[in-house]
Amino acid sequence: MSDPVSPGSLSLGTLNGLDRAAFTAALDGVFEHAPWVAEAAFAHAPFDTVSALHQALMAAVWARPEAERVAFVAAHPDLAGKAARAGAIAPASVSEQAGLGLDRLPDEEYARFERLNAAHRARFGFPFVICVRRQTRDALLDAFEARLAHDRGAELAAALVEIGHITALRLVEKVHGPGMPRVHGRLSTHVLDTHKGGPAQGVRVELYEVGASGRALLRAAATNEDGRTDAPLIGGAPLRIGRYELVFHIGAYFKARGLDLPGTAFLDDVPIRFGIAEPEGHYHVPLAVTPWSYSTYRGS
Amino acid sequence: MSDPVSPGSLSLGTLNGLDRAAFTAALDGVFEHAPWVAEAAFAHAPFDTVSALHQALMAAVWARPEAERVAFVAAHPDLAGKAARAGAIAPASVSEQAGLGLDRLPDEEYARFERLNAAHRARFGFPFVICVRRQTRDALLDAFEARLAHDRGAELAAALVEIGHITALRLVEKVHGPGMPRVHGRLSTHVLDTHKGGPAQGVRVELYEVGASGRALLRAAATNEDGRTDAPLIGGAPLRIGRYELVFHIGAYFKARGLDLPGTAFLDDVPIRFGIAEPEGHYHVPLAVTPWSYSTYRGS
Amino acid sequence: MSDPVSPGSLSLGTLNGLDRAAFTAALDGVFEHAPWVAEAAFAHAPFDTVSALHQALMAAVWARPEAERVAFVAAHPDLAGKAARAGAIAPASVSEQAGLGLDRLPDEEYARFERLNAAHRARFGFPFVICVRRQTRDALLDAFEARLAHDRGAELAAALVEIGHITALRLVEKVHGPGMPRVHGRLSTHVLDTHKGGPAQGVRVELYEVGASGRALLRAAATNEDGRTDAPLIGGAPLRIGRYELVFHIGAYFKARGLDLPGTAFLDDVPIRFGIAEPEGHYHVPLAVTPWSYSTYRGS
Amino acid sequence: MSDPVSPGSLSLGTLNGLDRAAFTAALDGVFEHAPWVAEAAFAHAPFDTVSALHQALMAAVWARPEAERVAFVAAHPDLAGKAARAGAIAPASVSEQAGLGLDRLPDEEYARFERLNAAHRARFGFPFVICVRRQTRDALLDAFEARLAHDRGAELAAALVEIGHITALRLVEKVHGPGMPRVHGRLSTHVLDTHKGGPAQGVRVELYEVGASGRALLRAAATNEDGRTDAPLIGGAPLRIGRYELVFHIGAYFKARGLDLPGTAFLDDVPIRFGIAEPEGHYHVPLAVTPWSYSTYRGS
Repeated sequence: MSDPVSPGSLSLGTLNGLDRAAFTAALDGVFEHAPWVAEAAFAHAPFDTVSALHQALMAAVWARPEAERVAFVAAHPDLAGKAARAGAIAPASVSEQAGLGLDRLPDEEYARFERLNAAHRARFGFPFVICVRRQTRDALLDAFEARLAHDRGAELAAALVEIGHITALRLVEKVHGPGMPRVHGRLSTHVLDTHKGGPAQGVRVELYEVGASGRALLRAAATNEDGRTDAPLIGGAPLRIGRYELVFHIGAYFKARGLDLPGTAFLDDVPIRFGIAEPEGHYHVPLAVTPWSYSTYRGS
Repeated sequence: MSDPVSPGSLSLGTLNGLDRAAFTAALDGVFEHAPWVAEAAFAHAPFDTVSALHQALMAAVWARPEAERVAFVAAHPDLAGKAARAGAIAPASVSEQAGLGLDRLPDEEYARFERLNAAHRARFGFPFVICVRRQTRDALLDAFEARLAHDRGAELAAALVEIGHITALRLVEKVHGPGMPRVHGRLSTHVLDTHKGGPAQGVRVELYEVGASGRALLRAAATNEDGRTDAPLIGGAPLRIGRYELVFHIGAYFKARGLDLPGTAFLDDVPIRFGIAEPEGHYHVPLAVTPWSYSTYRGS
Repeated sequence: MSDPVSPGSLSLGTLNGLDRAAFTAALDGVFEHAPWVAEAAFAHAPFDTVSALHQALMAAVWARPEAERVAFVAAHPDLAGKAARAGAIAPASVSEQAGLGLDRLPDEEYARFERLNAAHRARFGFPFVICVRRQTRDALLDAFEARLAHDRGAELAAALVEIGHITALRLVEKVHGPGMPRVHGRLSTHVLDTHKGGPAQGVRVELYEVGASGRALLRAAATNEDGRTDAPLIGGAPLRIGRYELVFHIGAYFKARGLDLPGTAFLDDVPIRFGIAEPEGHYHVPLAVTPWSYSTYRGS
Repeated sequence: MSDPVSPGSLSLGTLNGLDRAAFTAALDGVFEHAPWVAEAAFAHAPFDTVSALHQALMAAVWARPEAERVAFVAAHPDLAGKAARAGAIAPASVSEQAGLGLDRLPDEEYARFERLNAAHRARFGFPFVICVRRQTRDALLDAFEARLAHDRGAELAAALVEIGHITALRLVEKVHGPGMPRVHGRLSTHVLDTHKGGPAQGVRVELYEVGASGRALLRAAATNEDGRTDAPLIGGAPLRIGRYELVFHIGAYFKARGLDLPGTAFLDDVPIRFGIAEPEGHYHVPLAVTPWSYSTYRGS
């Protein structure tokens, strides 16, 4: 499940009023082991928006010569590595990796990560960096394999793009103010009963993450009088890239409506299997349904 | 999977030309242990259609007083019973039960049937009779449980209706001629690519039977240039009442079309789960699909 | 087009603080020629909600003996009658009737209303009363014809129900406060491009009222980046019962997207014709569309 | 409406057995004023299929030097020209033009054709040639305007392609045999009631041609127990390129089913407006409908 993004307590106004040393100290932990990033961005203060601040921070990284960018990336810990397991990495990294359970992998999966980490370091000279909070475990492993086919320039760029995602999330959890970077996605649904021409109320809906080794229940909810769930199925956090399944308990709903249907109903539990590719996107996956037909689509 | 109904070799014309004894002998095995049924129907020969012949046979049964109808039903073997296991029942019954694997159940399922059979006989004084070829194993067990709640009159009628289905199938496999009883159902599909506005060719489609203990692959096929499978998914036999799942490999199809889609596609394998309640019905379950939407319905 | 309901300037709190005479005077014009309605309702003051006030007013009417209810209805002017044409009726009635153009009908339509009015008075002894703001002209004429078939009791009840709608609207335009009576409907749309998997921006949408003598353009708008119109197609007023047509200029939209489509496109202007039966309802009429397919439904 | 293609009475076998003179005489009228086309094709006799014969005929034309191809095209009459009006052109051309009413145009449309014909001859030195039987009048005029923008080479090629369509139709009406050229299109529909889960029987369907000056009824039919019309809406002829509208009388159908729906039904007459671009194509335009929703698509 996605870990909710908790809003930061430091206001942008306050941050804008600090001197260079205090500014750099205030942003400690956003970029690990690299206070020079905040120091360089300070030259562009004050910032109108939190997005502008984040862009200035990332621009400071991209402006460095390649060797320094490589060194910067190289300071990041291995995913699911020994240090992560031992808790001997930056606290933010610890909790990010913990969200996917990377700190408590079964031995054989741990070994798989070890092999991939070693292959990555051997090929590129720096660790594999990815914004864990935007990935399901299967998607993360797929990305790991796929990025091993990169050339070094593309992989360095990919790592920096991921650091952009990681630090946007950290910044949002530290600083609040106008123009926040967009780090939240949303998954919602809606059940429309086109047999009666209105929202379907009381339909049980389950959301599963679908992985190579099976599916795991993330959420269960029932539709309200608007045919929607009271809260988005996922919200207030990046959506994890990966594959999902919604199951709508339509058979029970139509039975409760008292329709005269066969004992073995044509539609009972309706599964909708779909992929999420945009962690900050809005995925609206509705169901328009009669006892004999349905349709769905990606809405927004 | 449904066992195909093989056409009978005896023509209705030939049958109509026989005398009573030969007529009765020719229909041996349609009604087990009850040559009197054919003898009674003979009074209405000649028959214009095979359906009329079947109706005359069943009418002869329904015309008997209740005690004789009970005795007639009581002559049927238990489902998955000792006799069935030992092969000590009529050959037609043996092969019908074998189609669902009732002759080789694991011990605990066999015990469940034993309990149900015993409960049925205790309550009604005659065995549970059902047309096995029209049922999945799960549907059969559900029907068994449900019919235990009948009163005796309703259950006797239910048994005779099922004997009507059993004997229609046996008759069709013995006699051919005009006006055959309808014993065949059909399940078909069609994939329409509403992104390009034409049939989707080359989509892999799998059909599963879905049971309490998982799903079993019944058929796999690919769509042809009309977006259909070359043959119906099920045809030439009754459809087994039960729950099914079609899986359409849409992700691979759109990838092969060369569309520019996200790495984690919105739609990959599209499952359509549905129930079949009418063994002699036509179920057309099409998919109209784009990379971002789909719809299905029960057509015919 | 629906006339927007303008909010009343008098607060419920102020109204609750008035004595009987001032209370009655403040509600003058809500019930024409019948100050006794407000006087009777005053006994139940203060009111928690504007809805409760309206219910108390209508209850005062329904509580009267039949002869008085008839007299109350009989005090209403004819629809499109001489007095209405001459402006010699209550100002509220004048503007309500003007909204449908009943004060400026061509002679032959005026003659039709005269005939219907005369028939109604001859049959029931009181005029035909209807909440004009909830009707298209065609729907109003249909209702007029249909109600002539009522018996007297049903027609008296129908007239009072309509007076309930008329006075709810007048009250809402006079008094504001918590718990307003629901007098607003809403018609909205949404265009989803299921070819690309996102909202369709820049689609021209036209809304027509469809009548016996043709269709009249009510609104034209273009969809925004969410695939919606910036404002509801109709809102802030009752929807007029009647028939409508939405036309979506889909051909131009897909052409602008640069798709490779035939010169004579399969879809160009897509008309959706629908009826509105609930003036206070929410009608969401979306279009999910590719160059080769579309679907719509009544949503909410 | 499309004029049905009547099958030819001469068999390919007979034709293959003729000598050059008889062969040429037998094909008289397929290519106007150009017996040399058949004479040249004779060298490739005998033909396995009628399509192969047609290809040989057209190949004989394309093989000529440009000046001769121009002369060949120039021998064709003007569309709706003086000669056509006077009946002073080849009989086949007369009846082809008559199918669109080009022999009896109102004066102002006649004048428009005169202007276009003159412009075409002035620009290219040969008349505008088009296979009239594949066009609605609006589509024909659009094509005329559009082709005036061609360069001479493209327009000469366009004329020959159209002569290919014209002569394929004439050949099919003269000769029968294996491998007929495809000159027939088909328009069909199907109404599926997804409220009850089966075909909708008894739905009145109307097909209109939609032109700049209004719409004209081409066909009316009612759906049968399969939800289809007994015959295709158009078949046995090329479909005319153009715009069409199907109207499904769904309101009356659901009323007849006895459903409890509002007096002003959400759906009453459902129009589906679509274009036909492929005269020899199969257009299946079905409607899946409930009282509150519908969808359609181009099927085949």
